[in-house]
Amino acid sequence: MVSSPLVNTYPLSSYTFGTKEPKMEKDTSVADRLARMKVNYMKEGMRTSVEAILLVQEHNHPHILLLQIGNTFCKLPGGRLKPGENEIEGLKRKLTSKLGASSPALVPDWQIGECVAIWWRPNFETIMYPYCPPHITKPKECKKLFLVHLSEREYFAVPKNLKLLAVPLFELYDNVQRYGPVISTIPQQLSRFQFNMITT
Amino acid sequence: MVSSPLVNTYPLSSYTFGTKEPKMEKDTSVADRLARMKVNYMKEGMRTSVEAILLVQEHNHPHILLLQIGNTFCKLPGGRLKPGENEIEGLKRKLTSKLGASSPALVPDWQIGECVAIWWRPNFETIMYPYCPPHITKPKECKKLFLVHLSEREYFAVPKNLKLLAVPLFELYDNVQRYGPVISTIPQQLSRFQFNMITT
Repeated sequence: MVSSPLVNTYPLSSYTFGTKEPKMEKDTSVADRLARMKVNYMKEGMRTSVEAILLVQEHNHPHILLLQIGNTFCKLPGGRLKPGENEIEGLKRKLTSKLGASSPALVPDWQIGECVAIWWRPNFETIMYPYCPPHITKPKECKKLFLVHLSEREYFAVPKNLKLLAVPLFELYDNVQRYGPVISTIPQQLSRFQFNMITT
Repeated sequence: MVSSPLVNTYPLSSYTFGTKEPKMEKDTSVADRLARMKVNYMKEGMRTSVEAILLVQEHNHPHILLLQIGNTFCKLPGGRLKPGENEIEGLKRKLTSKLGASSPALVPDWQIGECVAIWWRPNFETIMYPYCPPHITKPKECKKLFLVHLSEREYFAVPKNLKLLAVPLFELYDNVQRYGPVISTIPQQLSRFQFNMITT
């Protein structure tokens, strides 16, 4: 039989969560966000963003850590790379900025794993596709999702204006209304992995 | 930068398609199918099925080969493993049965590649999930999808009662109504690959 890649997942209760100063969104509206995207595209070309799938387990089922803004919108921790920045280093920088403690000694040693999905933004619009559509020669953004392998114990510092939620795969699946097309199909992208649920 | 796994795709026109005797479905209704599944489960335990994603390109965009039954229902080539059968060997056997020529010399040397998704059937029902739902200790079926790497030239013999269609990723994406949950999220599962579109 073909063996699936193995991912260790630890109980949510084995992690410690603190808070830190708020990290405000750069844009206050979708229109602002797309306008800023356009300005940056003119200066730097296609935007590359990287996002992390951090897994924990509860009741023997995998859960993903999502950052919640306000009461509705959820996103994966991550963000935009600087021009020319290495993807792995850039994702580590973003994870530390979003979830790392102020004291460098407490920041997790992020283990960036498999790239599980790549999404493309053909135009300065919200819609993205899991392929670069035909006839699009100059996509505006490429977003890559990586699995991040957590150790048994970690300390996360969550910005005060955000909540960190552990959302089960069964809640994300087939729930595009609540989580959008990128996050709601993470269960399918993770289905090829075998989860080693460690109970400590 | 992290390099994505590379998949060569050749134009649809570089393949040759013939026909062979019909291969009828074993069941004439969904109820029959689930009843047969139950009988087999009693005898052999959990069913394991394997299916193939065969890729070609047209207009520089990846297309997947689907078998169409009648005018509506589409499926991936593949099928059920025999008890204890190796997944890779079983998928080769199924591909030859579905698409191989009658003459063994003309049968493709199937190159089974990456497992891209695993789906679970918790009960004797049509619904499947890309994870084994919590509290389900005895799933009834596990279905694995594999990428199959085609050579530049192949001959496929299509059973006379079926049609073989090359369907673009953009047609599958977000089209659960037409293709169902398994096939319609193949674009997301393939998004991490880099397609080397060869034009010959």
